[in-house]
Amino acid sequence: MEGGIPDVHLRRFPKFSHSAQRAHFGRFAILNFMPNKKTLLSHPIEHIDIKQHDVRDIVDAMHRMAYSSRDLARAAEIYERMLRDQECGVILCLAGSLISAGLKQIFVDLVRNNMVDAIVSTGANIVDQDFFEALGFRHYIAGDEFKSGMRDGELRDLMIDRIYDTFIDEEELRICDETTRTIADSLPTRPHSSREFIRAMGVYLEQQGKTPAKGGADSIVLAAYEKDVPIFCPAFSDCSAGFGLVAHQHARPDKPKVSIDSVKDFYELTQLKIANPTTGLLMIGGGVPKNFAQDIVVAADVLGTEAPMHKYAIQITVADVRDGALSSSTLKEASSWGKVDTTYEQMVYSEATLALPLIAGYAYHKHAHAERRERRWSRLLEPVTA
Amino acid sequence: MEGGIPDVHLRRFPKFSHSAQRAHFGRFAILNFMPNKKTLLSHPIEHIDIKQHDVRDIVDAMHRMAYSSRDLARAAEIYERMLRDQECGVILCLAGSLISAGLKQIFVDLVRNNMVDAIVSTGANIVDQDFFEALGFRHYIAGDEFKSGMRDGELRDLMIDRIYDTFIDEEELRICDETTRTIADSLPTRPHSSREFIRAMGVYLEQQGKTPAKGGADSIVLAAYEKDVPIFCPAFSDCSAGFGLVAHQHARPDKPKVSIDSVKDFYELTQLKIANPTTGLLMIGGGVPKNFAQDIVVAADVLGTEAPMHKYAIQITVADVRDGALSSSTLKEASSWGKVDTTYEQMVYSEATLALPLIAGYAYHKHAHAERRERRWSRLLEPVTA
Amino acid sequence: MEGGIPDVHLRRFPKFSHSAQRAHFGRFAILNFMPNKKTLLSHPIEHIDIKQHDVRDIVDAMHRMAYSSRDLARAAEIYERMLRDQECGVILCLAGSLISAGLKQIFVDLVRNNMVDAIVSTGANIVDQDFFEALGFRHYIAGDEFKSGMRDGELRDLMIDRIYDTFIDEEELRICDETTRTIADSLPTRPHSSREFIRAMGVYLEQQGKTPAKGGADSIVLAAYEKDVPIFCPAFSDCSAGFGLVAHQHARPDKPKVSIDSVKDFYELTQLKIANPTTGLLMIGGGVPKNFAQDIVVAADVLGTEAPMHKYAIQITVADVRDGALSSSTLKEASSWGKVDTTYEQMVYSEATLALPLIAGYAYHKHAHAERRERRWSRLLEPVTA
Amino acid sequence: MEGGIPDVHLRRFPKFSHSAQRAHFGRFAILNFMPNKKTLLSHPIEHIDIKQHDVRDIVDAMHRMAYSSRDLARAAEIYERMLRDQECGVILCLAGSLISAGLKQIFVDLVRNNMVDAIVSTGANIVDQDFFEALGFRHYIAGDEFKSGMRDGELRDLMIDRIYDTFIDEEELRICDETTRTIADSLPTRPHSSREFIRAMGVYLEQQGKTPAKGGADSIVLAAYEKDVPIFCPAFSDCSAGFGLVAHQHARPDKPKVSIDSVKDFYELTQLKIANPTTGLLMIGGGVPKNFAQDIVVAADVLGTEAPMHKYAIQITVADVRDGALSSSTLKEASSWGKVDTTYEQMVYSEATLALPLIAGYAYHKHAHAERRERRWSRLLEPVTA
Repeated sequence: MEGGIPDVHLRRFPKFSHSAQRAHFGRFAILNFMPNKKTLLSHPIEHIDIKQHDVRDIVDAMHRMAYSSRDLARAAEIYERMLRDQECGVILCLAGSLISAGLKQIFVDLVRNNMVDAIVSTGANIVDQDFFEALGFRHYIAGDEFKSGMRDGELRDLMIDRIYDTFIDEEELRICDETTRTIADSLPTRPHSSREFIRAMGVYLEQQGKTPAKGGADSIVLAAYEKDVPIFCPAFSDCSAGFGLVAHQHARPDKPKVSIDSVKDFYELTQLKIANPTTGLLMIGGGVPKNFAQDIVVAADVLGTEAPMHKYAIQITVADVRDGALSSSTLKEASSWGKVDTTYEQMVYSEATLALPLIAGYAYHKHAHAERRERRWSRLLEPVTA
Repeated sequence: MEGGIPDVHLRRFPKFSHSAQRAHFGRFAILNFMPNKKTLLSHPIEHIDIKQHDVRDIVDAMHRMAYSSRDLARAAEIYERMLRDQECGVILCLAGSLISAGLKQIFVDLVRNNMVDAIVSTGANIVDQDFFEALGFRHYIAGDEFKSGMRDGELRDLMIDRIYDTFIDEEELRICDETTRTIADSLPTRPHSSREFIRAMGVYLEQQGKTPAKGGADSIVLAAYEKDVPIFCPAFSDCSAGFGLVAHQHARPDKPKVSIDSVKDFYELTQLKIANPTTGLLMIGGGVPKNFAQDIVVAADVLGTEAPMHKYAIQITVADVRDGALSSSTLKEASSWGKVDTTYEQMVYSEATLALPLIAGYAYHKHAHAERRERRWSRLLEPVTA
Repeated sequence: MEGGIPDVHLRRFPKFSHSAQRAHFGRFAILNFMPNKKTLLSHPIEHIDIKQHDVRDIVDAMHRMAYSSRDLARAAEIYERMLRDQECGVILCLAGSLISAGLKQIFVDLVRNNMVDAIVSTGANIVDQDFFEALGFRHYIAGDEFKSGMRDGELRDLMIDRIYDTFIDEEELRICDETTRTIADSLPTRPHSSREFIRAMGVYLEQQGKTPAKGGADSIVLAAYEKDVPIFCPAFSDCSAGFGLVAHQHARPDKPKVSIDSVKDFYELTQLKIANPTTGLLMIGGGVPKNFAQDIVVAADVLGTEAPMHKYAIQITVADVRDGALSSSTLKEASSWGKVDTTYEQMVYSEATLALPLIAGYAYHKHAHAERRERRWSRLLEPVTA
Repeated sequence: MEGGIPDVHLRRFPKFSHSAQRAHFGRFAILNFMPNKKTLLSHPIEHIDIKQHDVRDIVDAMHRMAYSSRDLARAAEIYERMLRDQECGVILCLAGSLISAGLKQIFVDLVRNNMVDAIVSTGANIVDQDFFEALGFRHYIAGDEFKSGMRDGELRDLMIDRIYDTFIDEEELRICDETTRTIADSLPTRPHSSREFIRAMGVYLEQQGKTPAKGGADSIVLAAYEKDVPIFCPAFSDCSAGFGLVAHQHARPDKPKVSIDSVKDFYELTQLKIANPTTGLLMIGGGVPKNFAQDIVVAADVLGTEAPMHKYAIQITVADVRDGALSSSTLKEASSWGKVDTTYEQMVYSEATLALPLIAGYAYHKHAHAERRERRWSRLLEPVTA
């Protein structure tokens, strides 16, 4: 080790020299050790804190360059612009495994600093990853040698789940599943929006003392509950909560049960658009969250209210436009559908862990949210769900 | 025109010479004409018919090459293999805009030839695209000059929606929305799985005579209804039916309503896994359908039944593994989660319109399904939903 | 094995059950056997023969679909069109490891059927791969388990080189290097274009009886020599021949030596453009060959001859447009530089082993070349190089 | 304009409202104005200055995240590590249009701060872009509306060349071509390595007063000349200098001429590897520069000197591994060829304008080069070329 670079960052686990690794036992080649579970789960992912990194100057410099750097700088400015627009409600869309990748604190900070007013997400980000960490668990750094997937069979035997270069303890994840079942069992047996369920998860965290004030980790679910920022997961059974809810329903074969009504999600989000016509989208990844949030413009129209297109839109993605899929479809294309205005839109083709700290950090350090009022949109929805 | 190549295929719309296009009026440059709506919607997408193209030899040749061709050939053989395995139930997963791209007939043929036993899809493929065509509408070829999105504002004024290089008549799509509302209005007011709703769409088509026998187009929804192949859309409100269902609920503010319970979807699909433990996945794209279908192995476990991992798995995708998202996560990675066995798995990195006709056509012309019995899985689920 | 699917195609090497692979010796996990070199190099790549696969119907069907299939069909038609244009000279550009991937026979067939008039390539395709096979060597199928690179150290110990999922015997490649040195030693000591050197490689093959007539493999180098199709490698020392040439020069420190003048390449190719102004480009991959061939339009202008832009242009690539690199730059962009006309241009975003057999096979089976005369462009260049 | 965001950064050129843009003249739609050349070329690209942005903390934070951010942080540390290794010579490889994108100053700073000892590049970066700017010209920001290529015909008429979202004045580029011809005319008529020619370009800049000291822009060519850092362009005629050299040779049909011997490039770079066996590669993009620099390990072996593999290697790229091309081939794969050691290697999948400022800036602000001595490798080569 020299210059302050710990070897552990370069190669996660102690390694023998190349020849030692390939010591031959007859015609068998020993490729590598398999460390035990505790060793494999010893380097937790740490979430980047945009408040610590003033990136204004570097983003401004990128403005006068080309390619993705200029796109990124433009996106950062559009985000700043939508925060300064006092009429504008900001909807954050999350797809991909973002929380496990170290981006959780950014979203918590956006919620706590009035930089986002509603969230539409895949279930995995909210339940399997954010709520999971709120329960006291962590994600772990996987060594480079696991990326190829050649050792996934061994990981399965250890009950370690892998997301690219990150590990999760499957036994802890089962506890998360179980907790969502407990929450389901506590709710009135009627159709709920995912938003209602996720709000109940926030209540649970508060009641159980899983809060920063009591030494716990901060979480999106908790912050959004405290700030009345509604969170929607339009495909809610497609996550850890799905397992809890299936178990809940399975235990009540002929009895009333909690159900998750995805129509109610769509209805509620549309109500927010109607109540606050000027909107901007900050999208990480594509998929269902992107489509769902874009569609509320049309849904408002279907309900007889002519709502304007989303005035601002940013999407960070690595998706490839050429397969015609929604994830990659350009924001210009969305304008043909009457969903997104094109004056202030920007696609940023980058993996999110690189681009988001710069975009969100730029807006934060520009104090774009300084004058911005809380929306507390969840309160608007309570009558709807009563 | 020479050699049988109609010019219309090369450039969709009549064009003036370059200089004519840029005739100057003062300092204005005239870039191009905007054709009228009828002209823009005059070249319908036609669905490829794998029954007409015996691709066995070319796929076999690809087996001995490298890169994507070899991967594709291996995937074709795995699909053949899962069809010949009499124990194996086949689940087809659809994400991306596949029907609008000309792949509908392949899926209809897979259903009608007992080559698939259940479908998990995004709502758009099933409702906005397949059911939409079943109602008598079409998708249209968009000229190359529209791909860039520079003219999407004009398209919006004409009420033409664009998917990359394809057009849809927004006015017709509104009729599709309306039809789903009519169907919703006709259903008992309780939580439904998306499968139940989509089955009702099949009933509707039959009742309205929207069938090949009566001169209509064939459709996945109809074929699946007739063959008792269940179709699940885990994020069902995220499509044309979402608009119909929102309108349905909006009209019944304090009354009982139809709701779509995504937990029920998950529960039903898990029941199928439990009833038929050996399973294979044929996945086009990733997203929610991929995750949902993979998760039923774990859900069965949660319900107390130890189900084996999916024995076979193929995924066709252009997604990039390096963003850690589910769409692109390798099937090896899924094995760390205990979801997919790795003996017979293959990712094919290709846009689906190129790869699927070869993979599905190969299995079809090998008569891999010749001995295969119908599963009629929908019948297994009727008691569940009663 | 069932249904005629040999296991060897699914998994290259005999495998033990999962548990057997992970038999423990103390705390060592045995991941896998390392087969010996002979076993690893036992399944040769076989080159696809477009003459055997009539793909006209399937490509025509793709014409009325969307995304890459429609792009591919359009590219196939443009290639047909340029072959039917009796004025048009066709320049084939090759980048990427195409020969090792099983595409060699396609290029041989294009040369022998007057479907291409000049070739611009990376050195590796022409020397390390095509000439290498002409010397009697082969490329080999690598098992899926090698793709991840986790076992590249072991391959190095066996002197096996890997290209993604393909193996080369490094000892054979050294013979290829040596052969290019022998050829260099036989040439007059002056600056040569790469074209002259590659022509000398064709002479060598003929003299050594490395021809199909004498039981050898057919090759691009031989076919091009026989048909007087010039081959240019603008970065010629960046391949197996580079090693031979370095050795040649090293042995002649203060004596006259053979040198490879890349300016001469550029000059010669420009002469061909001037002599045959109507040209079309069939490009696989991007890189130096693409740029080099496009630049001759400007070079002609520099030499005082106003040559028209390339009239037709097709590029098959997986490169991503968003990094601003030449490989991915669109053919429209090239038109801003005055290099490529945009009336008949098409990018096809696909890995070449999938797309090229369909595009080249389509033109071949349409007999687009039936009326086409040989150009024998090498003869035009002899006076230049005398 | 609000919050200090100048509109010019969001949309380059004055725009009318949407409806104004589409004012109809009969059935003609006016899409947009075409600004004149001076307006189009009014916002120059400005090069990012890593010296101004201390990114150590943010890169350290990325170390504990996932996906590309962790890869980037690891790459930054490997670069730091190779600079601290006093034995290690650093070879910088450049492919793609990097200088035009605003990265020039980074490379100048690396040269002037002894952070790189040799450069292997595409010709375009060195001649068309760096030398071009040294002559007093600039690259310009292109508005978003030009990216699609729909207006490239108009740009051609204005003699404006486009690289994705950047403009070049073709008339100025012709002056650059002409200047290389002047330099060629001044050289002894014998085979030169590209390195010799590029060194002559540095002499030219100095002689013409195109230096920062005399008010000119700093440049890689000048800095490398002053610091005796050799620059190699293995496909040297594939750039602006190619036009100048073709013109030079064309004017001397039967007389002695300057030629560019690519073998000499390879020989010289191999000599450097032999003289300084411990080496590290900092590669941006792939293509010929990557291959060329990797191959010198084998070339040294061919010349009878067993040189170690490159000890360190970093590559920033967006290339897709699945087409088997060299640009995307992993550094692990290169180890099967005996070219790159795998202890300290890292691929970073990112567009370079995002990743390089962080990687290079990290090493710079860690003062990794503080103890590093100049290599002045060009001096080693003078005897070779005498």
